[in-house]
Amino acid sequence: MAGAQTDPSSQTGDQAGASQRVGDGPTRAPALRVAVLGAGVVGTQVVRILVEQAEDLAARVGARLELVGVGVRNLAADRDPVVDRALLTDDLSGLVARADLVVELMGGIEPARTLILEAIEAGASVVTANKALLAQDGPALYEAAAAAGVDVYYEAAVAGAIPLVRPLRESLAGDVVERVLGIVNGTTNYVLDQMTTRGLGFDEAVAQAQELGYAEADPTADVEGYDAAAKAAILASLAFHTRVPLDAVSREGITKVTAADVAAATESGHVIKLLAILERTEAGIQARVHPALVPVGHPLAGVHGAFNAVFVEAAAAGELMFYGRGAGGAPTASAVLGDVVSVARHRVVGGRGPNESVYAALPIAPAAEATTRYQTRLRVTDRPGVLAEVARAFAAHHVSIETVRQVGLEADGVALLILTSHAAREADLAATVAAVADLDVVGAVESVLRVEGA
Amino acid sequence: MAGAQTDPSSQTGDQAGASQRVGDGPTRAPALRVAVLGAGVVGTQVVRILVEQAEDLAARVGARLELVGVGVRNLAADRDPVVDRALLTDDLSGLVARADLVVELMGGIEPARTLILEAIEAGASVVTANKALLAQDGPALYEAAAAAGVDVYYEAAVAGAIPLVRPLRESLAGDVVERVLGIVNGTTNYVLDQMTTRGLGFDEAVAQAQELGYAEADPTADVEGYDAAAKAAILASLAFHTRVPLDAVSREGITKVTAADVAAATESGHVIKLLAILERTEAGIQARVHPALVPVGHPLAGVHGAFNAVFVEAAAAGELMFYGRGAGGAPTASAVLGDVVSVARHRVVGGRGPNESVYAALPIAPAAEATTRYQTRLRVTDRPGVLAEVARAFAAHHVSIETVRQVGLEADGVALLILTSHAAREADLAATVAAVADLDVVGAVESVLRVEGA
Repeated sequence: MAGAQTDPSSQTGDQAGASQRVGDGPTRAPALRVAVLGAGVVGTQVVRILVEQAEDLAARVGARLELVGVGVRNLAADRDPVVDRALLTDDLSGLVARADLVVELMGGIEPARTLILEAIEAGASVVTANKALLAQDGPALYEAAAAAGVDVYYEAAVAGAIPLVRPLRESLAGDVVERVLGIVNGTTNYVLDQMTTRGLGFDEAVAQAQELGYAEADPTADVEGYDAAAKAAILASLAFHTRVPLDAVSREGITKVTAADVAAATESGHVIKLLAILERTEAGIQARVHPALVPVGHPLAGVHGAFNAVFVEAAAAGELMFYGRGAGGAPTASAVLGDVVSVARHRVVGGRGPNESVYAALPIAPAAEATTRYQTRLRVTDRPGVLAEVARAFAAHHVSIETVRQVGLEADGVALLILTSHAAREADLAATVAAVADLDVVGAVESVLRVEGA
Repeated sequence: MAGAQTDPSSQTGDQAGASQRVGDGPTRAPALRVAVLGAGVVGTQVVRILVEQAEDLAARVGARLELVGVGVRNLAADRDPVVDRALLTDDLSGLVARADLVVELMGGIEPARTLILEAIEAGASVVTANKALLAQDGPALYEAAAAAGVDVYYEAAVAGAIPLVRPLRESLAGDVVERVLGIVNGTTNYVLDQMTTRGLGFDEAVAQAQELGYAEADPTADVEGYDAAAKAAILASLAFHTRVPLDAVSREGITKVTAADVAAATESGHVIKLLAILERTEAGIQARVHPALVPVGHPLAGVHGAFNAVFVEAAAAGELMFYGRGAGGAPTASAVLGDVVSVARHRVVGGRGPNESVYAALPIAPAAEATTRYQTRLRVTDRPGVLAEVARAFAAHHVSIETVRQVGLEADGVALLILTSHAAREADLAATVAAVADLDVVGAVESVLRVEGA
């Protein structure tokens, strides 16, 4: 693919000795060697972004990131062409040994754990999205990293693209987290949302999730709550600075939720969500995963489809919510790359905080160049031809009309016209409104409001 | 107040030489001297948390935080008793000179800017919530800090308690932010929300916001969008790694929004929100603040009252939203303290990342000890006395009933009973359900669901 190139000068002679040069952006320190373990949905996206955003990443890190290899278990498998075949290797330990930074995206306990420990012992920093491993062995890995003076970062392990680790560990470091309610599994949220909004039964909703790729052929890990329980254990450890082992999380899936349950929930003003619930109680930390009735007015009730959200109650901060995509190649890769930049910066600049420099220095566009949509409410004379006159004024200024609504005759001979434009230049929209206001048939421009988020 | 004490051993002899000992928690490094500038709503809460959470903070930082003084402009003013009077000083420069860490909460341009620069030049790190100063002079302060090798952190300046700086600067450092839509002013969101949900006029809604303390006596900075514009400039700089000066933000307030606008918006499936809109466009960065129509299905449409939320669209991560309290003493103090812990850790442990240790080591409570509410759906024999029998089973297990609903007679002699309990022990609830299932009058326990978030 464009941007992926083999740099013969970095050949190291071993079987995966090719090196994919990742950009020639501004550099201030020797390049950091990055190894990616795993070339699945997430690994492929991480490699793509490492290549495509190389210059930006180099500016953010202060050093070039050099992709020295992509480790896979089976070299014979078909690969996304985004990964240069010359970079592939099945010598995973050998790849780890020649990296400053190891990105582990294989999943599962082994060989991921052994490879991560090898990386740490060799003085490399680690970024991982491996929730199963962290829920089981996270503390042991963090301790090994602390002893070796390297980082283990894992933002992508908890809720995909949603930034949670830094907010819980750093932003709330001066506060006391009292409770966390999380929708941390997109598959089950999709299934429950379809049951709620479209009246589907459980089996039907799961089948649809499978068709759309939101659920796997064997959906057990999702629908029985195992995936959510692993994330709950990691989140609880973060929120309460306490080791919460996976087997301390009580777990109940959504397989017993029926269409009748959903209908009854709706009737009583609730929606059913699979929640990870983590609480600081007098008896100690409570961690559980189960379907629950959530009042429709609660911010979590509005989390639809495969989205995730984590609602946090803290003593001083009050209620916080973090919302976004909890899975998928590109969203998870975003979280992985954020961690890659952080640990790489630690290696380059040591104790200094994140990069505050304005290296991008993009131009600032003049306000008149903004592209927006206007909804304009006009009081007009109610006679034939009015709409044509108004529409002509729009067309004369290159603004195209998306919808027109005529609302109630307010008085004899007067109508209210509500026009919504397609996206157009702010300057053209302003000129259109001025021209329309001058028309004889227009009594008044009652309001002009921009439309956003549509 | 309890926990605030004067430590005579730290007397330095000057007029504010008292030192408020902040805890005796585990320490691994010499104490860090903290100066707080400003004893208003936020400063008071920061001092309170520094004292009350001293042990936790020491564990998180790896060193004790010693509050060496609270700087105020006018010593004669009445003070919240939370601040030990012996710590107060109006010698602001003198206070800054004897701190390792300066927390600036005075607001306004001067003397805040001069004091922050004095702190930086003296090698102290700075935490500030001063949006006006950062929107005007942020880059100069960051450059001075970089040159001096100290930190300037400002999470509280953008949206109060909502973690935004770390997510934008670090979590998304490997991604490309395309657009930010923010509700960043709680006063205007409260006013517009009251107009929308309760049909109030603008003046009426502002008056109510003033009564509740959400709006100031002179609400201009909020309702004309000046506050939102300052936050927009800071957010744009963070999101796009580009210096976006305050005067590049086009600004329109909400004073022209009428009840008729709100009614028309509702009719067309929208709500009106004051948005800070930051976009990466072909013409460059666009930054603007104005009221806008947002579709009711958009996550920002569900942000009610004085809450803030920032919706981010990034190339890889997709849609993210951050929600919480954008103002108020305790929420803003939470963000300030998070920054205090971060910059203090930088001083104590240098390049090492945040504290992964599980120093809190709270106990894990057994699952049976969880406190929840159950909604139980029973198929019962439809005859007098059934409810009394069921209620007896609840009472026998110490579970009190909050509501009972009887839903439609499904067939001759059969009724559906939906009981919602008050909060009770999980074990008691489980025993109740088992006992109810055994009753002759109960045909089937159709479902048992826990209620959360209510």
